[in-house]
Amino acid sequence: MQWLKESEYLLNPPKTKRGWDTLEKICKAAEREFSEKGFSNVSVVDITQSAQIAAGTFYIYFDSKLAMYKYLLKSYYHDIRMNIQKQVEGVSSREEQEAIGLRYWFDYVDKHHFVFNIAWESFFIDKELFDEYYTSFGQAYSSRLQRAQENGEVRDIDLEVLSFSLIGISNFLALHWVVFKKKNHYDYVRDEAMKLLREGMFINHK
Amino acid sequence: MQWLKESEYLLNPPKTKRGWDTLEKICKAAEREFSEKGFSNVSVVDITQSAQIAAGTFYIYFDSKLAMYKYLLKSYYHDIRMNIQKQVEGVSSREEQEAIGLRYWFDYVDKHHFVFNIAWESFFIDKELFDEYYTSFGQAYSSRLQRAQENGEVRDIDLEVLSFSLIGISNFLALHWVVFKKKNHYDYVRDEAMKLLREGMFINHK
Repeated sequence: MQWLKESEYLLNPPKTKRGWDTLEKICKAAEREFSEKGFSNVSVVDITQSAQIAAGTFYIYFDSKLAMYKYLLKSYYHDIRMNIQKQVEGVSSREEQEAIGLRYWFDYVDKHHFVFNIAWESFFIDKELFDEYYTSFGQAYSSRLQRAQENGEVRDIDLEVLSFSLIGISNFLALHWVVFKKKNHYDYVRDEAMKLLREGMFINHK
Repeated sequence: MQWLKESEYLLNPPKTKRGWDTLEKICKAAEREFSEKGFSNVSVVDITQSAQIAAGTFYIYFDSKLAMYKYLLKSYYHDIRMNIQKQVEGVSSREEQEAIGLRYWFDYVDKHHFVFNIAWESFFIDKELFDEYYTSFGQAYSSRLQRAQENGEVRDIDLEVLSFSLIGISNFLALHWVVFKKKNHYDYVRDEAMKLLREGMFINHK
């Protein structure tokens, strides 16, 4: 997990390795605390105690618990996008990119247990945050799909609808197979989901 | 919204119209309170005050706040399923059923503002509840799809994967267009999503 080097929510980006280590401790403690108790039941003191740092240190980096949460959420957004992009670098077929991205996403959720806790709690903290988080993913998705549509790789479907459909698929497959079933059938799930994306759901008898 | 007439979480099902009215007041107040403040920040007293009923009345029906939440969640599950089934009654084509169900789901979310608040908060109250809620939908979906697959209407795709993909699509489309965008483009969104389901996402150049 790569925490953002710069962010509107980070008061003072650390200047040293040691500073980054401290910030990372705070972030990890915060995700753990938020995920275990829920955002509204966690205090800054809980976070600093769990991170085993002095209480005042928190305020070098963040001016509030909410600012720190927003920093976590943005960090996840960028970390997910950056990692998926890295996976599909140099892959020219959009279909193949989709399959690789979906498969990688299962591994990502597997390694980052708290990603749904952090992302979805935004719905309850401030709905606008949730909307912004997924709308950002949707816009990034749409612009990549647009190139593929112009290349004739993707059908004439509204790209906002298509993006949110794909986001829905990847989220619910990861929830069901990674978060809950915790069985490693990820290749199989990807292959079956790709049938839907490749061929469509209904056999046309006309 | 139809609250369940019988449920393991309901201590005493009301016997009179007046009893049902009281139970409904409690349920409506609870959804409002949970949605506004979050489950963990709401007390039974908050609910009874908001419902304008005597504090003790709550305990005629539920033995705890959690039992009452579980009752709400189960009621939503049954209400959603029952209403969608009613919409597609007598429609023989599975594809048409899917289109009708999706379109109706947008209206349902539009009319039931709290449905995502109630359903998704389960992820934070007790993850097993969330899993159970969506797994129940997934199983019901799968068994209906199985008949359509046997009829040759649905491609050879794993039905658990397909069900969760469809659940993902309908949830994220409703979130983006109904909860957040609040613009009535529901027919258009349904039509575009049906393109994906009907034909598949990628044009095959082979």
